[in-house]
Amino acid sequence: MSEKALVGSAIIGQSGGPSAVINASAYGVIKTALESKNITTVYGAYHGIVGVLNDQLMIMDEEDPKELEKLLYTPSSALGSCRYKIADPDEDDTDYKRILEVFRKHNVRYFFYNGGNDSMDTCNKISRYCAKVGYECRVIGVPKTIDNDLYGTDHCPGFASAAKYIATSIMEVSRDSQVYSTGMITIVECMGRHAGWLTAAAALAGLKGDGPDLIYLPERSFDMDQFIADVKRVYEEKGDCLVAVSEGIHYADGSFVSEAKTSGTDGFGHAQLGGLAARLASVIKAALNVKVRGIELSLLQRCASHCASATDIEESFQSGKRAVEAALSGITGKMVGFRCQRDENGYQCSYELFNLADVANTEKKVPLEWITPDGNHVTDDFIRYCLPLIQGETRQSKVDGLPDFVHLRRVFAK
Amino acid sequence: MSEKALVGSAIIGQSGGPSAVINASAYGVIKTALESKNITTVYGAYHGIVGVLNDQLMIMDEEDPKELEKLLYTPSSALGSCRYKIADPDEDDTDYKRILEVFRKHNVRYFFYNGGNDSMDTCNKISRYCAKVGYECRVIGVPKTIDNDLYGTDHCPGFASAAKYIATSIMEVSRDSQVYSTGMITIVECMGRHAGWLTAAAALAGLKGDGPDLIYLPERSFDMDQFIADVKRVYEEKGDCLVAVSEGIHYADGSFVSEAKTSGTDGFGHAQLGGLAARLASVIKAALNVKVRGIELSLLQRCASHCASATDIEESFQSGKRAVEAALSGITGKMVGFRCQRDENGYQCSYELFNLADVANTEKKVPLEWITPDGNHVTDDFIRYCLPLIQGETRQSKVDGLPDFVHLRRVFAK
Repeated sequence: MSEKALVGSAIIGQSGGPSAVINASAYGVIKTALESKNITTVYGAYHGIVGVLNDQLMIMDEEDPKELEKLLYTPSSALGSCRYKIADPDEDDTDYKRILEVFRKHNVRYFFYNGGNDSMDTCNKISRYCAKVGYECRVIGVPKTIDNDLYGTDHCPGFASAAKYIATSIMEVSRDSQVYSTGMITIVECMGRHAGWLTAAAALAGLKGDGPDLIYLPERSFDMDQFIADVKRVYEEKGDCLVAVSEGIHYADGSFVSEAKTSGTDGFGHAQLGGLAARLASVIKAALNVKVRGIELSLLQRCASHCASATDIEESFQSGKRAVEAALSGITGKMVGFRCQRDENGYQCSYELFNLADVANTEKKVPLEWITPDGNHVTDDFIRYCLPLIQGETRQSKVDGLPDFVHLRRVFAK
Repeated sequence: MSEKALVGSAIIGQSGGPSAVINASAYGVIKTALESKNITTVYGAYHGIVGVLNDQLMIMDEEDPKELEKLLYTPSSALGSCRYKIADPDEDDTDYKRILEVFRKHNVRYFFYNGGNDSMDTCNKISRYCAKVGYECRVIGVPKTIDNDLYGTDHCPGFASAAKYIATSIMEVSRDSQVYSTGMITIVECMGRHAGWLTAAAALAGLKGDGPDLIYLPERSFDMDQFIADVKRVYEEKGDCLVAVSEGIHYADGSFVSEAKTSGTDGFGHAQLGGLAARLASVIKAALNVKVRGIELSLLQRCASHCASATDIEESFQSGKRAVEAALSGITGKMVGFRCQRDENGYQCSYELFNLADVANTEKKVPLEWITPDGNHVTDDFIRYCLPLIQGETRQSKVDGLPDFVHLRRVFAK
């Protein structure tokens, strides 16, 4: 794209729960911004918008370019993240005045924010506020969320790497849990409070026969009696049973299974420690009296850069790069997203811009028609959707047999 | 080695908890046995010694050699495992008579057993029984245990891959848990009921600054008050704290922390579900009132073949190969093990034979002098010991972005 001249500095900030590839997006922004002659200085906000409010800006121009390249293969938010929810500017503009003050101080004319729904909301509000007060600043959102729940875009950077890790781990656990002639029931808990994309990714493990027997997503109400009956049936047929379950499953009344008081089945009847997997394991143990193991994939699924998808890394980098290119061409108030084709020619991903206002605070869930009628598995539609995204292996370099993560110098602007 | 002629068939069996590379050892046995002209048929016992007792023997000669090679990169026990404890032959020789019957039926003259302490005990008893009744059968143990607690050998096949996975995951979790400006305490639970080798491996993550602040092993008694004080001190100094803890930590009276009734700190005072990590997290939460997360690495650490150590794969394969070579040369009643040198010339591993009688039922623990005086970390001695073992990446092939595990035909002998 041609550049529509606006000379000034740029800020990139990261927000929300990190992923294995959020730094790849940041690198896309940083590298492209450093190469632009219209961008005078590239700042990394320390802990997202909080770093802007605190005027804690790290000068990316001061970093070794070779070290910066390791961002492609370093999990978590290298610039620091936050969970700060910014007010509506029409109700309280204190934060916005401060942001504008910092923007003016450093002549910030480009603002890139890398995160999920809330971050796109922040982006949108800052974009609107700048326009309202007549301060020219181009604001572009760079998507990130392992939850894959952003509206508009085909999928979200970060999802595919988590999906690849989940499918790989499920394959390994499936092998491990079938090793004894005495059967085993294994319940694996995946992240996803409202959307079941990550848990659905467990189904990819079934492509070579090592997948879960049962999958439960938050898109459908959970019924404990039906769950016990499902597990019992599979166990009696096969001699073992592997279950993938989303942390966000809930009863028909909307209450989370993970937070509900346990029923009488465990003999105590009070809230327990341990996650959903441990809770369901105790229910099954009480109901069927067989060997049961609960496994919570926990943080591991969102930071496993050693098992990242090369496709995800590349697309994440490109979203950062395209964000800067869009801003340089004069665009503001948009989020970079993907439009993808999956047909006989394979998988093709193109980059598009979505209105921040449309994206912010809208959750995209797994289509109900991609869940089997009995609510305990996903259809081939999901496999066709997800499989192209996990292709390719990371080229993360190793030192002493361990990942070589980035170490930033973190030189702060005065 | 030259062969001392004994013509007959061979059995390879796997036993105990699986690992990421136990199949690499099995492949070493199977490939070498298939190539020997003195070994007429190679059988895989279905579920270890139980498969022998049930006369369920899979003919390895019937498998596609190319498929068998995938054993190098497939986790868990592809032949099936068991936890069957065989009686002392002087007290009850029922099982031994049956084993001899099956051995005679298939003219089994070579028996290889792939497992941990108990398996070496089984090996030893079968070896002695065969000698006693005058049935010539050469019996060799092939070590396996992620716990790394076998006596004699420098280390055990399977340990290094689990160690590499643990160190890698700890590095990733360390990055993830430092992402917010609001601090976080993260407690990661590793396997190891009596020996702390796996938990100690978390220290490798510290080589590039992403290691745990505190490490607790079962070799030292655990003191909850000291633990809380340690965590508090680190958290106040750094603003966050990462802890690696062995599932087997116990109080001075020997009772496991994971099994103890919880103290009053959680307000209930009764046994809880969830593992040790969740339990310690609740104690810290109650004591310090900060954000705490407990993570249990669970089965993942013993089956993560996608993150296996190439050194471990090679050494595991070699132990199987050397076991067959030793048997063919006339040796019986031994276990293959490693003698290693670590000096200015690097790391060198040679293969030795150990007496099964010495190995069986003796546990090797982390030397107390490798634990820091205050009992909450390990010394550089451990790093020097462990680091060479995790070198090199697996060459596991992928299909559709996922591991390509072995699928055996499983043709059973009549």
